[in-house]
Amino acid sequence: MLSIQDMFVFCKKKGFVFPDSEIYGGLAGFWDYGPLGIELKRNIINEWWQRFVHEREDIVGIDGAIITNPKVWEASGHVDHFLDVLVECGKCNYRVKAESLIEDFLGIRAEGLKPEDFDRLIKENKIRCPKCKGEFKKARFLQLMFETSVGPVDGVKSYLRPETAQLIFINFRNVVETSRVKLPFGIAQVGKAFRNEISPRDFLFRAREFEQMEIEYFVHPDRLDECSYFDEVKDMEVNVLTAKMQEAGVKEAKKMRVADLVTERIATKWHAYWIALAYKWFVDLGINPKNLRLREHLHSELAHYAGACIDIEYRFPFGWKEIYGNADRKQFDLQQHSNYSKKELCLYDQATKQKVVPYVAAEPSQGVDRTFLAFLFDAYSYDKKRGNVVLKLHPRLAPIKVAVFPLLSNKPELIKKAREVYTTLKSHFNCFYDQSGSIGRRYARQDEIGTPFCVTIDFDSLKQNDVTVRDRDTTKQTRVKIDDLAGWIGKHLK
Amino acid sequence: MLSIQDMFVFCKKKGFVFPDSEIYGGLAGFWDYGPLGIELKRNIINEWWQRFVHEREDIVGIDGAIITNPKVWEASGHVDHFLDVLVECGKCNYRVKAESLIEDFLGIRAEGLKPEDFDRLIKENKIRCPKCKGEFKKARFLQLMFETSVGPVDGVKSYLRPETAQLIFINFRNVVETSRVKLPFGIAQVGKAFRNEISPRDFLFRAREFEQMEIEYFVHPDRLDECSYFDEVKDMEVNVLTAKMQEAGVKEAKKMRVADLVTERIATKWHAYWIALAYKWFVDLGINPKNLRLREHLHSELAHYAGACIDIEYRFPFGWKEIYGNADRKQFDLQQHSNYSKKELCLYDQATKQKVVPYVAAEPSQGVDRTFLAFLFDAYSYDKKRGNVVLKLHPRLAPIKVAVFPLLSNKPELIKKAREVYTTLKSHFNCFYDQSGSIGRRYARQDEIGTPFCVTIDFDSLKQNDVTVRDRDTTKQTRVKIDDLAGWIGKHLK
Repeated sequence: MLSIQDMFVFCKKKGFVFPDSEIYGGLAGFWDYGPLGIELKRNIINEWWQRFVHEREDIVGIDGAIITNPKVWEASGHVDHFLDVLVECGKCNYRVKAESLIEDFLGIRAEGLKPEDFDRLIKENKIRCPKCKGEFKKARFLQLMFETSVGPVDGVKSYLRPETAQLIFINFRNVVETSRVKLPFGIAQVGKAFRNEISPRDFLFRAREFEQMEIEYFVHPDRLDECSYFDEVKDMEVNVLTAKMQEAGVKEAKKMRVADLVTERIATKWHAYWIALAYKWFVDLGINPKNLRLREHLHSELAHYAGACIDIEYRFPFGWKEIYGNADRKQFDLQQHSNYSKKELCLYDQATKQKVVPYVAAEPSQGVDRTFLAFLFDAYSYDKKRGNVVLKLHPRLAPIKVAVFPLLSNKPELIKKAREVYTTLKSHFNCFYDQSGSIGRRYARQDEIGTPFCVTIDFDSLKQNDVTVRDRDTTKQTRVKIDDLAGWIGKHLK
Repeated sequence: MLSIQDMFVFCKKKGFVFPDSEIYGGLAGFWDYGPLGIELKRNIINEWWQRFVHEREDIVGIDGAIITNPKVWEASGHVDHFLDVLVECGKCNYRVKAESLIEDFLGIRAEGLKPEDFDRLIKENKIRCPKCKGEFKKARFLQLMFETSVGPVDGVKSYLRPETAQLIFINFRNVVETSRVKLPFGIAQVGKAFRNEISPRDFLFRAREFEQMEIEYFVHPDRLDECSYFDEVKDMEVNVLTAKMQEAGVKEAKKMRVADLVTERIATKWHAYWIALAYKWFVDLGINPKNLRLREHLHSELAHYAGACIDIEYRFPFGWKEIYGNADRKQFDLQQHSNYSKKELCLYDQATKQKVVPYVAAEPSQGVDRTFLAFLFDAYSYDKKRGNVVLKLHPRLAPIKVAVFPLLSNKPELIKKAREVYTTLKSHFNCFYDQSGSIGRRYARQDEIGTPFCVTIDFDSLKQNDVTVRDRDTTKQTRVKIDDLAGWIGKHLK
């Protein structure tokens, strides 16, 4: 399997992702998407919005600001609790996130530990600075939010949002009053978030600026197990690493039915339903299920307000890592903002004729950049026979859908016909025209960037008004009439 | 015409836009898009990307980070020159952007004036504080960029990008090396930008957080007038207010052919071509040309490096205001970044067999939020006969494409059929199902949010398997077979 460093090299070389401000030496934890990367990212976001907003009756979208009134982050607990633990070498001042240090040295999960826990672990295991072998100073908390100041001269101290979720909660009342939603329903959002990570690492995986796709799903607090959609997913099989298994030292996930998550009290029906939908979304868009697993959070990992939290993890070259999290957040956030703002954040439930503070039964949340990375790793393959990389992205995710080639680049009549075909297809799909190099080289270039179809115009095309369509994954060639071509491709992109 | 305040009220009431963090009293200059607003905004961005990236062979996209190495903003001149002039009342400390104060008091354009110019104007015209009638202190410069600090403890002082353009220039080399582009070509980007405005105002028009859609279009410096696409636009008619007309005190724009912009030396062919394309984009998506005009910048308004700059202005209730700007930026930015970074930012031009620093012949740049506002103002109308607002958005921009109603809400057989139709349409278009209230009331609700088609299922539908499709703008009703419905609507959304 490709290492994360190899993946970065591939992404840069092909124009998927560049280091931000590289000509100035870059800035750690920031990345720019290149011409192919932005297409893949847009396709990911559009597939998500289509599936979870447009095709559903119970979800509406919003798009909140990145900078918001700082009271939002006081109420949510971020100002006091959204902290990382830093350790610093007493000799060379090397600074590292305590969690990363411990995970690298001891290979154990260190999320959520306190400064004193890290001090103890460092002492017990005689961990020294990896740069100079010096001793570490006492661990301490650091604020993870980026600060800024809003307004001229002595502005208001505010923050760049460290997550998109709170923008949903603070808009809850406005959405309810304008959208005629009724319980159960969800609010979706896609957008950037910022965390001043001590140690950004693993390419896009842990960046300081990143993008999230999130839903807060609200249900009646007395009806947590009345999920009318549950039958759609109950028999789906998923790989699961339960809290119990982790406590017993089990490393390999086991297969379970989604219904078992409920009977084994790992998740409520609503919670299990939403996790199943995300799992299915990844699989439908091409991720091999053997590289996916659910991981139930241990009780010690849970935020004090959370009823349960389940991640979807992807098997990266640097281990199984979270690409999606889904917490049962209870009524915590709405109650918290209601207390802080002195505004009533509830709704009148027609069905029960009650005013209720809705319960967040599920919070499907995934990083766009991590999703991007998982799709790339899963699609990447080297074909020995062809002698080139084949990026087997789902056709709906592929940055370029069709490449159009004249068979020979020195025959004006082939070029003329190829240009006509290209121009027609361009209004339907993102296309690429190429007449340079051998046809084999041109196929290889498209394989490497995941283009599902290559259309070649040859001398027969001039007589028969048809083309060869070559399939990326099978290399199978099909003859298609030019008049039917856009329709044929449209059908095969699904 | 609706005032900007009325438009805000309308947007809030219908769920297009909410004041950010309203439950905490908001934060001046920040706005959140609601369920309908995010759909309209997504449609605007998608239409732009489709037209200017996917349908073109000479444009590729990127997506740069919001926070970048601060050297970018030193090189670009923003650290030293991206300043606003503040005036502050000596008595009550009221602070206002000098430009806004002067424009409000004197009704003259005050962009680009220096503190001493403002001091003189304030003195000459005896302008006092509008709050307390106190005297203003000396005007002074203020940095417009939001600052933040990157990295733990003593981090690097950096900025939130005040424009997206620089991210294109600093990625120029990586794009050229990975994308096989050749001159002339452009790089496009859509994304957020931030300006710590002294006086945010006019709703979305001047916000502190906003979104831009931008292209930098690179040509060979010796071939500024070799625009092979020019014939496509040369005979287009546009409304223009030239610099000369402004200097002569003329207020009304005059009609000109795009070709005249070139012959009258207002723009180069490339510059004129790109401006014409944007004008056409607005008009194709429904803006009435009588509400659009080009305004050539006066020589005194131009940045020192710019060859020319032409805006597209929209007739807002608060005056003709910029919704799009397009500067001829010469070779300034690439040369500047090349000098600062000591990296060669040029490309080898196959056609002339030369290494050249490309010339930015056009920089089409428009605010997403201002575009959003212009489309809403242009679409808003009150229909006296119907007694309700009709939002005549272009069908491709409309947040919801189709609403589906059973004629009567107490007939299970109508509801059943209507639900079937709704479910089928939902996988194709963003749809809304509604069975509450009279049919007239349901039509009115959809008119107000711009839904182009309402589909009603009545008793004939059960027998004939057809429906009534009602057109928002004409109220004309057409009978369409259910089997043909998705196709019929798809065709009429174009």
